[in-house]
Amino acid sequence: MKEFDFIRTLKKLSPLPWERTVGNDSAFFKLKHKRGLISKDILLEDQHFFSSIPADALAYKSLAVNISDIVSDGGTPRAFLIGLGASSNHFSILSALFESLYKYARQWNIPIIGGDTVYSDKLLLSITCLGDAPQNPWFRKNARLGDYLYITGTLGSSAWGLSKIPTLGHELSDPHIKRHLYPPLYLDFPSLFKNKIHAAIDISDGFYQDLTHLLEESNLSAVITPETLPLDPSLPPEAKNTALRGGEDYELLFASPLAPSSRRWPPNLQKIPIAPIGKIIN
Amino acid sequence: MKEFDFIRTLKKLSPLPWERTVGNDSAFFKLKHKRGLISKDILLEDQHFFSSIPADALAYKSLAVNISDIVSDGGTPRAFLIGLGASSNHFSILSALFESLYKYARQWNIPIIGGDTVYSDKLLLSITCLGDAPQNPWFRKNARLGDYLYITGTLGSSAWGLSKIPTLGHELSDPHIKRHLYPPLYLDFPSLFKNKIHAAIDISDGFYQDLTHLLEESNLSAVITPETLPLDPSLPPEAKNTALRGGEDYELLFASPLAPSSRRWPPNLQKIPIAPIGKIIN
Repeated sequence: MKEFDFIRTLKKLSPLPWERTVGNDSAFFKLKHKRGLISKDILLEDQHFFSSIPADALAYKSLAVNISDIVSDGGTPRAFLIGLGASSNHFSILSALFESLYKYARQWNIPIIGGDTVYSDKLLLSITCLGDAPQNPWFRKNARLGDYLYITGTLGSSAWGLSKIPTLGHELSDPHIKRHLYPPLYLDFPSLFKNKIHAAIDISDGFYQDLTHLLEESNLSAVITPETLPLDPSLPPEAKNTALRGGEDYELLFASPLAPSSRRWPPNLQKIPIAPIGKIIN
Repeated sequence: MKEFDFIRTLKKLSPLPWERTVGNDSAFFKLKHKRGLISKDILLEDQHFFSSIPADALAYKSLAVNISDIVSDGGTPRAFLIGLGASSNHFSILSALFESLYKYARQWNIPIIGGDTVYSDKLLLSITCLGDAPQNPWFRKNARLGDYLYITGTLGSSAWGLSKIPTLGHELSDPHIKRHLYPPLYLDFPSLFKNKIHAAIDISDGFYQDLTHLLEESNLSAVITPETLPLDPSLPPEAKNTALRGGEDYELLFASPLAPSSRRWPPNLQKIPIAPIGKIIN
């Protein structure tokens, strides 16, 4: 068996249609309207994840970070393409990885419609996510004067979890490590906040840097009330010092014309904690 | 300077909007209708190309093979996403590579709307091409009883060219090597043959194998007239023996209800040689 054949074998075992969905060269998709959003992330062994990462966590994270890119523009994820690079060294992780990729694709109702597989010494995932674009995408540049700034969830746990992996391994009973490996997903967010958000960004580079991205693109400034920033309360003091610079929180920072006390806030937000942190100024 | 910074520097030099086109997390696109086609190919140094490949040839080929996937389903390519993995060892090729990627994107009017860059020891290109889907895509499974089979261009030169690279290098004055590095592009093909083709496939795995794909998917058979197969006449006898098994010709094999003598053949085909090679039977 050629070193490559086992990838083909795995593809044939896939429970959902893999590459060449409809027996064609490219994958076919349909959007709700003519407008779409597309995101693409490459994850490479030893660069973006440790070789010892559990297959399930790798599958979850690689899909979730792409979903997050679509959601933070107000879009609705519709389909994945999975580019895989692997060698026979990865045989032990590959079948579990595929199983989890398909598990989450099913769970979130975002089918895997295509992709490509190649031989690669380092495990490589190149994932593309296609989504429906809303009428008014929450582009970074769209924040407006007077908008309120909000953050979902808490900050800092992911970076702290990452720093613990070299000593503790991928210990999922540790809440910070788990938080790093399983970033939050806000799949319903765009439909709940439709037309209620002007600009959004997912906090993947750290709060300071991502806030800067949003403000620079919008050509505006902000006043932030530091004590309102939702740091993870379970962080030790040494982690709190760098929590706002740490990355990979994948929480949403967004600018909305709705005041915190507005009656127009969407109902059914119980599961999504949202903290007001400041305002957009000139 | 971190080893990664130079990639960011290059991105800023790009003549066309690169990643985050409209200042957002995902890239925004519009289709003609709600139906789209999407293809994805990963090209990895030492696996899919020699390290010494000229930057221009790498740019051309990596884009062309994705376009070919869209075109062979009858679609019209609309946008690229470029995933790049590189290290400082690739510095010498990177700026020329970017220049050529943008040159071809401009020339073919297929903008680069997004992507991702990562650090990678091996040069890595993960390209995604988005296209408009036609009303009736030329899926492999759609061949019909009585269809005529045709092939564009000639076969065998690419595989023969590839076999010469280890001794001659990327010698572009050699027509077979050039043919391997610059596969043909049939951008106008879908509009010329709109509704005149049932099924098509680009010959990337070799004629025998790709014909088998098409017939198996369509659940039909074919009679082929061997002497009509358009082998490249400039091939030496030893290359002719394996020309129909060689790959990467990127010519189109298609099934059409139009007879070779039909008056309904599209005009303006002067530039695209097309050979009738047989018929679809039961």
